[in-house]
Parts: sequence; C-alpha cells; structure tokens
Amino acid sequence: MTLRRPSRSDLINISESTHVHLTEHELSVVEQMIADNLVHYDVLDQIPEVIQTNVAAIRIPGSRPTREHDPFNAIVRTCDVRSAAPIEGSLSGMKIGVKDTICVAGIPTTCGSKLLYDYVPDVDAPIVSRIINAGGHITAMLNTDDFAFSGAGHTSTYGPGLNPRNAKHVAGGSSCGSAIAVATGQVDIAIGGDQGGSIRIPASWSGIVGHKPTHGLVPYSGIAGYDLTLDHIGPMAKNVESVALMLSAIAGKDEAWSDPRQPDSIEKVDYTAALSGSLRGLRIAVVEEGFNTPWSMPQVNEAVREAIKLLEHLGATVQSISVPEHNHVVPIWNSIATEGGIDTFFHGLNAYGTKAWYNTRQMSAMSKAIKSNASDFSPTAKVSVMVAHYMKEQYHGVFYGRARNLARQLTAVYDEVFKRFDLVVMPTTPQTAHEVPPMPEVDRAAHISQALNMLCNTAAFNLTGHPSISVPCKDVVGLPVGLMFTGRYFDDATVLRAAHAYQIAQ
Amino acid sequence: MTLRRPSRSDLINISESTHVHLTEHELSVVEQMIADNLVHYDVLDQIPEVIQTNVAAIRIPGSRPTREHDPFNAIVRTCDVRSAAPIEGSLSGMKIGVKDTICVAGIPTTCGSKLLYDYVPDVDAPIVSRIINAGGHITAMLNTDDFAFSGAGHTSTYGPGLNPRNAKHVAGGSSCGSAIAVATGQVDIAIGGDQGGSIRIPASWSGIVGHKPTHGLVPYSGIAGYDLTLDHIGPMAKNVESVALMLSAIAGKDEAWSDPRQPDSIEKVDYTAALSGSLRGLRIAVVEEGFNTPWSMPQVNEAVREAIKLLEHLGATVQSISVPEHNHVVPIWNSIATEGGIDTFFHGLNAYGTKAWYNTRQMSAMSKAIKSNASDFSPTAKVSVMVAHYMKEQYHGVFYGRARNLARQLTAVYDEVFKRFDLVVMPTTPQTAHEVPPMPEVDRAAHISQALNMLCNTAAFNLTGHPSISVPCKDVVGLPVGLMFTGRYFDDATVLRAAHAYQIAQ
Repeated sequence: MTLRRPSRSDLINISESTHVHLTEHELSVVEQMIADNLVHYDVLDQIPEVIQTNVAAIRIPGSRPTREHDPFNAIVRTCDVRSAAPIEGSLSGMKIGVKDTICVAGIPTTCGSKLLYDYVPDVDAPIVSRIINAGGHITAMLNTDDFAFSGAGHTSTYGPGLNPRNAKHVAGGSSCGSAIAVATGQVDIAIGGDQGGSIRIPASWSGIVGHKPTHGLVPYSGIAGYDLTLDHIGPMAKNVESVALMLSAIAGKDEAWSDPRQPDSIEKVDYTAALSGSLRGLRIAVVEEGFNTPWSMPQVNEAVREAIKLLEHLGATVQSISVPEHNHVVPIWNSIATEGGIDTFFHGLNAYGTKAWYNTRQMSAMSKAIKSNASDFSPTAKVSVMVAHYMKEQYHGVFYGRARNLARQLTAVYDEVFKRFDLVVMPTTPQTAHEVPPMPEVDRAAHISQALNMLCNTAAFNLTGHPSISVPCKDVVGLPVGLMFTGRYFDDATVLRAAHAYQIAQ
Repeated sequence: MTLRRPSRSDLINISESTHVHLTEHELSVVEQMIADNLVHYDVLDQIPEVIQTNVAAIRIPGSRPTREHDPFNAIVRTCDVRSAAPIEGSLSGMKIGVKDTICVAGIPTTCGSKLLYDYVPDVDAPIVSRIINAGGHITAMLNTDDFAFSGAGHTSTYGPGLNPRNAKHVAGGSSCGSAIAVATGQVDIAIGGDQGGSIRIPASWSGIVGHKPTHGLVPYSGIAGYDLTLDHIGPMAKNVESVALMLSAIAGKDEAWSDPRQPDSIEKVDYTAALSGSLRGLRIAVVEEGFNTPWSMPQVNEAVREAIKLLEHLGATVQSISVPEHNHVVPIWNSIATEGGIDTFFHGLNAYGTKAWYNTRQMSAMSKAIKSNASDFSPTAKVSVMVAHYMKEQYHGVFYGRARNLARQLTAVYDEVFKRFDLVVMPTTPQTAHEVPPMPEVDRAAHISQALNMLCNTAAFNLTGHPSISVPCKDVVGLPVGLMFTGRYFDDATVLRAAHAYQIAQ
C-alpha cells in the first residue's frame, strides 16, 4: 500500500510534542522530505515477511463460563487447544490453563482488560507450542489483574479472583485465575506470569505452589509483559512435582522468537530427576528483613519460622542474616515497573531495540486500544500510566535509570549471599490474603491502595532474576501462608528440590 | 529531596497525551494516589548509588582548534587524556582520537550538535578506559554529523568534515573527523561509530581503513547511539595492522556497564597475530546487488572489480552470487534507524528495558536539551524526528517491528551465504565522496537529500551484525574508493586478515 502522508496539521502537532519548532520555510521543505522518506516505507510494506509457524492443533475458542461453573472466577474463557495428532509427551492427558496474557493462536487473549477484549493472536507464544508438543491440553485462559498491574487479583475487568479457601478474600494476583484453577482442580497445572510476585503471591494466598524461574530460563516471548528486566513466566500447581514436570517442558532456549531476556545458551535440566535428595548439607539463610516489613503479620512470621525449623530438622544448616538492601526493594521495583512497564505498553507491548521477533499485530492491537480505550484501564493501571508519564516529563527517566542501577547493586548483594548459602528463605508475602477490596465505584482509593502492598519480598527477585518458589506452609487465621525459597542464578533445580523436600515432609 | 508533585494541569495534560480521560472524581483520587506513589520516589532518591569508577588519568579538556590548525575540520576539541601513571601498553605513545559521541569523563562530549554543547560526562565509556589502560593518549574529540544522523559528514554543528584529498568534497560520515584526522596524521588511530556505515563510509571516501566489528564484540556503552541493534564502535587507521592493534585493545566483554548488545561471553583474540597468512583457500563471494544500486558509479564498480581480481591472484576462490534480499536494505534500515534511533534519543540516549548501567546524567542532559533546543537538531535529524513520531502516531510502530523481523530474515540469508563462503565483498559505497552540499540556508532540500544516499551496502551489516571492513582500492576521478569485506559473526580475524593481505599486495 501507499502510506498516508502527514498533513500540515499532523506536522504542527508533532512539532509541538517533540519541541522541534519549524519556520514556515522549514515546514514546507520538511514536508517534502518526509514524503520522500515515506517512499521507503511504501517499499518496506511490500517486502515479504515470514510469520511464525504454529503447531498443527485443534483450536476451539470456547466461551466465558457461568459463575455456577466457575464460582471463584478463575476462568476468563474455556478453550480446547491440543495437538492435531495425538502426542505421547510428559504432559499428555493433562489439563493446562494459561494466564490470559499469553498468546494462543485463534483464542482471544485479553490481559484481563477491556482494552484488548477483541484481540485474537495469530501466533502461539513459544511456551504454548512447547505445552502442545508435550501433549498438554490447554483448557482455559485464566483470570488476571488488568494487564497484571496488581498483586491482589481484584482488578480484572472480569471481576476479582476469589480465594478458593474463603471467597470473602481475594486469591492474590496478578495470576489469580492460575492459582484458583489449580486449587479447585479445574486444571492440573497452570502457567502464571510474574513481574513483581504475580506467580508467588497468588500461590501463597491460595495455598498452592508457584515457581518464578530464573530470568530468561523460560522464554517470555509472545506474552504481554512490563519491563523486559522484570518479566518471568512459570508453572503453578498443587505440588512441586507438577511444577518441576512443567518446568522441564517449557524451559530452554527459543530460537524462533529470540527472547532478549534469554542468555545465549541454556543447559537442559530434568527438573523432576533433580527433586530427589535430602536437604542434608544445604546452607540456608533466613533473611530477617523479609520478616520485618511494614506489612508483616506476626502469625505469618510464626508460620514461616516454624517451617524453617522443619528445614533444620530435615538436615539443612540454617542461619539468620541481615540484607539491609532488601528494604529498598519497593521503591526500586516501583520505578522500573511503572516507568518501564508503561513505556512497554505504549510501545504496543513489544519494546524496541531488541533482536526478537516482533508481534506486529499485537503492537497494532495494543496501540489502537490505548487510543480508543485507555480510559478503560483499571484504576491501578491508570495511576501507573499517570505516574510514568509524569516522571518522564518532569524527571526525564532519570529515576528509572537510577532504579535499574540500584537493581544491579541489589543483584550483586544477593550474589554475594549465594556465595555463602545455597538458598535464602523468607515469607512469600508479609500478610495473608486481603479481603476483597471495595470496587472502585464504592471506594476508589481503597481499591487502588490494596493492589501493591504485598510484593516487598517477591519483587526482590524480579529485580535480581534469581529463581524463587512459594510453597504452602501451615494456615493461619483460616488462610494459607507461603514459604519462599530463592536460589542461585539458573540453579532452579536446588530451589525445587528444597521446596519438594519441605512439602513432602509436612 | 522531596519530588515535586504534579499539578492538576500536569495531570490534565498527561491525560490528554495518554488518552486516559478521567472524571472529576477520578482525578481527585488519582491525584492523591500519585502523591502516595511518589513517596516511593522520595525514598528511591535517597538510596546510595555506586557510580562507575574512572581510570586515574590526566584530563585536560583543551579547546576548539583554529581552521589554520585543522584545515579539514576534523577536530571538535583537542584534549589530553592519558593515564596518570606511565603505562607500557599496546597503544603507548600513540595519539588516539575518539568520535565526539563517546563519553570521556571531564571532556565535553557534544555529539556534533548544538543540543549537547554543554554536556560534560563524569564517566568514561568502557572503550575509553581500555584505551587509557593500553597507554593511548586521547588527543582529540573528533567531528561527527549531528547525532551521527547522516552518512556524508556535512551536518555537524561545527561545519562539514572536508575530504582530505579534495576539500571541495565531504569526508563521509558520520565519523568524518575520525577519517580526516587519520588521513592527515593528526592522530595515529581513531575510533568511529557505525549505525549504517558511519565508520566504513568515511573510511571509503577519505581513503583509509575502517572496521565495523561484529555487533557486540566491542562494548558500545557510554556512547550516544541509535537503536541498540544497529550500534557499533570500531577502529579507523591508515592500515589494517593499526586497526587490528586497536581492536585487540578494545574488544571483549565489559562487566561494569553490561552492554546489552554484547553476548554472554566473548573469546579473547589477538587480531594482530591473526593477520598473518595468505588468502589461499579463502572462499569469497561477490554480491552482485552491491554493484547494481540506484547510486552506483561505473568507475567505482570497475575499481572494485579490479581489486577482486587481485584477491583471486592472491589465491582466493572468488565467485559471483546474487542476494536479492540485499536490495531491501535501505527501507529496512531506514525504519529501524529512524523509529528506533529517535525513540532512543527521546529516552535520553539510554534505552529502557536492559540490565545495563544507566548513565543518568546523560539521560537528563539529553532530555533537557530536547526540551530547550530540539529546534537546533540538524535538518536531517529533524526530518527523522518528524518521521519517527508520525510513524508511531499513525502506524503504531508496526513498521519498526516489521523492519526488525525483516532484518532477522536478512541475517538468516547472509548466514546461509557464510556457510558456503568465508567472506563477501562489494563496494563500500556505490559512489565517491559527494561535493560539499549547500548549507541548509542555501538549499535545505539538497542538504538533506545528500545525507543518506550512500549506505545501501554498509547498512546491510548493521542490520545483520556481521563484521565488515572498508579498505582503500585505487582512486577514481581523483577520489578514493573502498572495497568492503564482510565475514562471519565473531570472525573479525578473517575479515582483517583478508583486508590486510589485499592492502599489502596493492
């Protein structure tokens, strides 16, 4: 096609927003020069482009379940996606649910938001191909906070994800549907995404296991995310065995989409085989700052301390340590998630400057959605949009850069800890699941303020990239508590092994 | 410090630009929520940050030379930067000039632009540290097109870089000063940057050697660039030996700034040692599309064909091939350079979403310069700013994504070629050096249109990342012609070896 050329008023608007002020004479020349430049785009438009190849699969989009069939609101949409030819694989016969941020070709993928309610990907995210190729049946797109911008699970346009133990409470987010569907048995294994704790928080609050793999171990391509440095995708299940099984199926280098988050090569590991072995000889550090947060509930701390005693009983060497920099997690994370995340949104969910394969249809869908429906962002996402743009306009992204630099410092601090210890432990969340907050029409301030006050421990390891798992320990006040193990870069195997040993010893 | 909170009118402006329209009630709540969020920033501002460590050096900023002392306008500013303690290294006693886009602590680094005329970095780019540590004396900041946004060398705010063979012609850009200073002997070795050919074009037009290393071989951190995928930095000198010497000094992984362009590990190579050996057995492909461009001069083609005959004579196996995709280079490159490059400018020259160390002072300097002085961008850069913003507004970055996908396809095509051949050759530029174009006050259209019509061959390997060198072959019409060798990813040694064998056989 021949691209539309900018009108004079387009140029004047751009001139305004870029601070490039043109004289009348300049404007007329620039107009011609832009028209000349756009000829290159007319040609670019004609060059044949090779699209990603999808697995040959049955793809039935299904529909939104009734509340009767889905009482805790786990599922945005049932579906049936499976290999066209029967496959004997590690996931054969298993019902797999994926977070509604993960592109499944032919199935609406809405990010729990009104903005993308009509977006249907034509490509599978690499992990979707891997699940199908391992014989898994994708049976549900699972509820999520609106663009994952909350850790509580109450901001989805489809309504809050309710806690499977007590529906007066939320399930935790953003991967709320993933936690609920696992807890209720609606699926065997779910996939969640984690930018600040969004796998581990709902796992903790809903009483299941959730693993955030090492940054880059599992390809994040084809999944709506925030800042490339924070994005993780991983398995959630009732037990560590299922988590390990799924991790073995989805981990590893992907060449087709070239996720810039992945390192150049990744060793293949059988995570199920790695589960065997005791805790004897493992050196575990208890990070005291994880217990002394402004939001810490004594009952949660007690439950986690008791769990740690069991680790010692199982043969681990346990030692309390102080990591003062852990107290800086929230301000550092807040800036990267807000400024980096919103910048990604405004680049159509596909950040520039990488050698990845770009999902141009998603770029278009997201950018058009912002133009037509940005006012439909959740109240929490709206605040983030406003803060991000304000910080860019007023402080030029300098705080983003500062936060990234401090994230590197935090990583170095934890890498030092991991020279002396194999694992660190702390409560996944400082508190048990929130009560379902008021809807924004009732109390907008409470609705927003309940969204991000539980991620002080989890988000540390989005900043550093270390692998981190939440396993249930004992309930308190009638609600689950999670114990979080975190380990060395790409040593997910030790993290899973410890979590497994703890879970079966309980 | 306590950050300034947004005013109501700030919020209304942001609301306009982000399409998030707020009701009066929403606005009042959001205002409070933003204020709450900014408390995290007040804390972020207080967390101690570790800055990069600079080499202990003598740092004398010097001044702008007179035209008498610098007749071809190579030098923006003389300087004297050298190790505080004498060093016996591979560059000891050598005068090194660096492009004015490269941060040298304590020395103004202006990018050839009025926008950054007052920016003084407080940090050295990693390659600067390496040069100082190898005993090099940095004696000049070298002229460059305004933010490197031209391949001709005539758009610098300090005036055009003049061709050292004939001052009625330009030297080629954007690293014009680097080529001139080498050709005139003002420096022994220069560093240039190359986003679309900006090392190789001025090398070709000014009759010297210029090497664009494999993407990521040399850390680009601390240097003003475009899109992360296009940025290269490399050596320019009279002969390949000096280029190899400098490459050995500056190549390799840098951990301090963590350039996201670099792979996880880089093998150390002695490029000087690699120069020995004949061309016997080397399989060289002649890419015919490189000779049949819309701008190809027959005299240039003849000179390059003659050079290729010499390669055969020296024992190489030479074969003509067709790479039809080579014809797509300009439209693909144009979109990535324009949309990606300008996006980087508007992120303060430090693209978001990487685990690099962020140069926050540069972010601030560049962002403030855009607000206060964007109208001082060169005419070519202004067109790029306008096109980039128009394409984002009207087509949502989709063409950028398409161009990146096509760059991947082009890379795959050349990787296939490199399975059958060790090197490909073609003319560096289709034409000899332009006459000095009219200044914009005289003929703005001509000034702009002469800026980017020579990069059809060079830019191919900015898209693919393969190492690529220009060496002088015989002069035609009284001006130099360059022969370009390109090789396999991270096989810079073979590229240098062939260029060396050719140069000494002439």
